[in-house]
Amino acid sequence: MSISIKDIEAARGVIAGTVLRTPMLPAPKLSALTGAQIFVKYENLQVTNSFKDRGALVKLASLSEAERRRGVIAISAGNHAQAVAYHAARLKIPAVIVMPVTTPFVKVAATRSHGAEVVLHGESVSECQSRCEEIQSERGLTLVHPYDDARIIAGQGTIALEMLEDEPGLDTLVIPIGGGGLIAGNAVAAKALKPSIDIVGTEATLYPAVWNALNGASLPIGGPTLAEGIAVKNVGKLTLPVIRELVSEVILVNEAELERAVNAYLTLQKTMAEGAGAAGLAAMLARPDRFKGRKVGLILCGGNIDPRILASIMVRELDRDSRIVSFRLTIPDRPGVLGQIATRLGELGANILEVDHRRLFLDVPAKGAKLDVTVETRDAAHAEDVINAMAADGYQPVRIETGAAME
Amino acid sequence: MSISIKDIEAARGVIAGTVLRTPMLPAPKLSALTGAQIFVKYENLQVTNSFKDRGALVKLASLSEAERRRGVIAISAGNHAQAVAYHAARLKIPAVIVMPVTTPFVKVAATRSHGAEVVLHGESVSECQSRCEEIQSERGLTLVHPYDDARIIAGQGTIALEMLEDEPGLDTLVIPIGGGGLIAGNAVAAKALKPSIDIVGTEATLYPAVWNALNGASLPIGGPTLAEGIAVKNVGKLTLPVIRELVSEVILVNEAELERAVNAYLTLQKTMAEGAGAAGLAAMLARPDRFKGRKVGLILCGGNIDPRILASIMVRELDRDSRIVSFRLTIPDRPGVLGQIATRLGELGANILEVDHRRLFLDVPAKGAKLDVTVETRDAAHAEDVINAMAADGYQPVRIETGAAME
Repeated sequence: MSISIKDIEAARGVIAGTVLRTPMLPAPKLSALTGAQIFVKYENLQVTNSFKDRGALVKLASLSEAERRRGVIAISAGNHAQAVAYHAARLKIPAVIVMPVTTPFVKVAATRSHGAEVVLHGESVSECQSRCEEIQSERGLTLVHPYDDARIIAGQGTIALEMLEDEPGLDTLVIPIGGGGLIAGNAVAAKALKPSIDIVGTEATLYPAVWNALNGASLPIGGPTLAEGIAVKNVGKLTLPVIRELVSEVILVNEAELERAVNAYLTLQKTMAEGAGAAGLAAMLARPDRFKGRKVGLILCGGNIDPRILASIMVRELDRDSRIVSFRLTIPDRPGVLGQIATRLGELGANILEVDHRRLFLDVPAKGAKLDVTVETRDAAHAEDVINAMAADGYQPVRIETGAAME
Repeated sequence: MSISIKDIEAARGVIAGTVLRTPMLPAPKLSALTGAQIFVKYENLQVTNSFKDRGALVKLASLSEAERRRGVIAISAGNHAQAVAYHAARLKIPAVIVMPVTTPFVKVAATRSHGAEVVLHGESVSECQSRCEEIQSERGLTLVHPYDDARIIAGQGTIALEMLEDEPGLDTLVIPIGGGGLIAGNAVAAKALKPSIDIVGTEATLYPAVWNALNGASLPIGGPTLAEGIAVKNVGKLTLPVIRELVSEVILVNEAELERAVNAYLTLQKTMAEGAGAAGLAAMLARPDRFKGRKVGLILCGGNIDPRILASIMVRELDRDSRIVSFRLTIPDRPGVLGQIATRLGELGANILEVDHRRLFLDVPAKGAKLDVTVETRDAAHAEDVINAMAADGYQPVRIETGAAME
């Protein structure tokens, strides 16, 4: 294999005192949710809020004086961009980051704020490739690859050293796979320290690149995913052989499982995970029997999620729990009815969130109207009570399936 | 004073190995925001997600065998209830928690899930008082007061011992004040270890009970606050003298500052703070000059915030940053116009979140209509560009001030 435990131990020396030795803590509520004993490694608390700080620093620190003077280049719209920009600035190495023109402005601004030169090009990360190669050869820059680089892999692998130092009893690690740098480094480290440990990978169902490679399959790859941090189409040349040798299984997680995991981290563990950061927990939610009774280490590998998307997930999960419920009532179109209904809902303990009064439907009598009401209830049983009470009052309630107020 | 550093050191021995020794980490983005060097103590990662675990355990562990058999009682709709219920169950001590009937169902359920008996009574915590005293004397229970108890205060004070052990260079602690147990315990501990340290308290502007006492003032007390965890009307008999002696100043924070602090913890530090938990940061946002250049320890004392309220804050903050902007257009009421406007907004890079088409206003010609549009933009300047483009196209845009889509 291309990297060894010695490389990872050396990497640990390189990052010591600069990259945070993040906390790992027991997560009793997530344990209760899954039936396993879960420990969470909080890589979202790194300065750029992902594990990418580790590999980026190890790579940059390995450059010669001449290479440092010329500078580095990377392609990334995400966490790798922040990490390279931040540590290059610290080491006074000029950095160019090539990003698709579609990159959200806040991410461009965050990368620039670290002092990097941002080049916007193409519609996607793959379209950035040729522009990156041009600039690289024009200026003699060193490429900092996000995963297919032995130094990067060794840097990421330092996480497992810390985890097994803090909790030697861990018997399983569940690790997200994009290009595979995170899992390859940590599989090498963990297996070297504890050969019996079970290393499980997880990919988004929409991006099963490694799953396909391991299973000789060709599931389709692509589409919008909450876990854009692991939405990688190509398998790493260095990482795949390591995964093949050391990883027992790759579990695919769908978008609903990713959303549920992001929400569980937030509401139960009070911490913010991006989609990719929650993928390990999502795999445990998808396959609880696989992990029941085990002592599992989860790497919460990143916390950079758009606040609007996070808010939307939270509201949608409340909706799924029937704490937010919408229904359409048929009402006589005369003054005072809305007041009666609002009063009645208050008596029932339902908190009104939205009301939409519609007179223009064709299926109501000329003197009738429809009223769409969204209320917050205590739970599904309470929602049922509220709807039954509306029926008893003669308003013919019809439940509306909704993506909730945020959508 | 009623408690000494020896009591707090003894309390530390009591909780060791049971209550989490939470991480304290540098928060570079919050430091950049405030101009101080901030370290955050993550008490929101405790099992019941607040610092209340500490004092509750110290108190419960101090009971005699006979007291344990008879059981304990507490009044609380919040974090104190969870902490007492959780640790009483661990120690097999029967626990009664008296809560107002208005307590959200999820909090009642969470307290019951720890095995406590929940008695719902009255409209507010203060109305629970007489019912609590009745049950206490009927059954011979021991009261676990949320703050006015030397054991509770000593337990809370263990936080500062850990903080100064991890970072002896801290020169300032900013600590939320409800009843004052948290700040009293930690002021005693911190001043004993480091007499030069500056202890600053913070209260919600709506609940300035201690501020009034210190300043001989009588600002009104009451009202709905995001920081319900520190919405306390009465000053503690044990805590006030400690605060008077050891706290240099109490800073009042308003609701907007509390919201901004909750949002900053979430979006910059990737962690979930309830209103009271973010009050220390809110004080720094309110008075940046007071703290500039200092090495400040913040106790993020709790993370129990309703997901819907958190989602609402996040959306409202995006709104304040002009990343979500609403305006009303006047348009000709004919087919195709909506499509033209939607296409134009797309070209301008504005992401449409909501459209509301109104034909019924009296101030438009019969053949005209109003269109309310809510879009997401990159920043305030971009929002301005979008509105100017709509004006140039003849749609007479009028900006709408909005509490955003969630409200």
